[in-house]
Amino acid sequence: MSGLRIAEIFGPTIQGEGALIGEPTLFVRAGGCDYRCVWCDSPHAVDNRHRHGWAMMTTAEVMAQLVALSGGQPMLVSLSGGNPAIQDFGPLIGLGHGQGYRFACETQGSVARDWFAALDMLVLSPKPPSSGEVVDWARFDACLAAAGDAPKGLKIVVFDQTDLDWAREVAGRYPQLALCLQPGNPDSDPAMPVDPGALAQRLDWLVAATLGRGWLRPRILPQLHVLIWGNKRGV
Amino acid sequence: MSGLRIAEIFGPTIQGEGALIGEPTLFVRAGGCDYRCVWCDSPHAVDNRHRHGWAMMTTAEVMAQLVALSGGQPMLVSLSGGNPAIQDFGPLIGLGHGQGYRFACETQGSVARDWFAALDMLVLSPKPPSSGEVVDWARFDACLAAAGDAPKGLKIVVFDQTDLDWAREVAGRYPQLALCLQPGNPDSDPAMPVDPGALAQRLDWLVAATLGRGWLRPRILPQLHVLIWGNKRGV
Repeated sequence: MSGLRIAEIFGPTIQGEGALIGEPTLFVRAGGCDYRCVWCDSPHAVDNRHRHGWAMMTTAEVMAQLVALSGGQPMLVSLSGGNPAIQDFGPLIGLGHGQGYRFACETQGSVARDWFAALDMLVLSPKPPSSGEVVDWARFDACLAAAGDAPKGLKIVVFDQTDLDWAREVAGRYPQLALCLQPGNPDSDPAMPVDPGALAQRLDWLVAATLGRGWLRPRILPQLHVLIWGNKRGV
Repeated sequence: MSGLRIAEIFGPTIQGEGALIGEPTLFVRAGGCDYRCVWCDSPHAVDNRHRHGWAMMTTAEVMAQLVALSGGQPMLVSLSGGNPAIQDFGPLIGLGHGQGYRFACETQGSVARDWFAALDMLVLSPKPPSSGEVVDWARFDACLAAAGDAPKGLKIVVFDQTDLDWAREVAGRYPQLALCLQPGNPDSDPAMPVDPGALAQRLDWLVAATLGRGWLRPRILPQLHVLIWGNKRGV
């Protein structure tokens, strides 16, 4: 069995964003990413210069840590990153399912994996123009196809009106998918405090800019963990 | 057709709490309540001394206002209050369903109505000890029975450890229901500003007190509208 590059494993805490917001969750943050979003809030799981902080773990070791953290109670596990899709989490999902754990995965949709079909939730987060990345839609559609009948949804981070217009266009391509919009956090430096008032203002703007223009489809949700814990890691 | 006592109708905005958090929603806040929770955050829809501010409206008038607010786009409508169950919203649900609108209802579970079965979501919020009210479980179970196969869930407000212990006991009676916990807001006076840091601390406490003791079932969610808009009404 090949090793997994793991930036951090933590929980139980609540999922802070997206359709599963508020759900008790264990997080497996995979190390490594094929994107370099300019506003990335998890550079410690992305940049290779942080790789000395990543652990090489076997699937069994990751599972043992999840069981230890949850006291053996089966619960939801979120595979995030970085981009977890550049590694093989299929064996972990199989092992966890055997013990009653459920698995969600958050990925930008740039790398399709056959284990997407085993997920209890696939969250695809295509990155908007403000990220500096450009979505390869053929690859994105391959991710959707790989997931088959697994529950899935879109989550799009919105920093500005350009992102919002883009999100609406993207959403139009996927009318069958549940959709969440999330205001961007421009101040994700873990060394800096967060201004909850400023985050609330961004959410207020996004609600007004979306619903106020008659776009009534998306759920609009903040990053709850940032509102509660700022940019602190491991919560 | 008898009239409906309506404290306010507003939206589109996002649902700020519970399982539908973030969903674009129109709110119909019914006037009148059979409870007097000591920390009620909507006394303007409860106390009879506010009844001069309530409108008597026909079902058709309420529906016309919902259509106007949403520009005719079908969307989710939340019936809240006060306790909407002390009035007859069956005709409104029927009328709205005919035009593609969906209906959620938030009630404490003290009055069962046959129209619960027509809802797209029934949220039952039994009031914990800190409210000063005492739940009549026979009536509560009658509400569940009346809802039949309609989607339903529990939402319990938690102010302190006593409430949390009570919530766990109540939840144990209803293992089949989705469950949300929500920290209480002790400062719900619309004339007073809200302290987002204090609200975040209450959420932090609730997460720790719930998950930290190995209770991994409930979703834990804040009142998003309070974080964004404070105690302002009509948002």
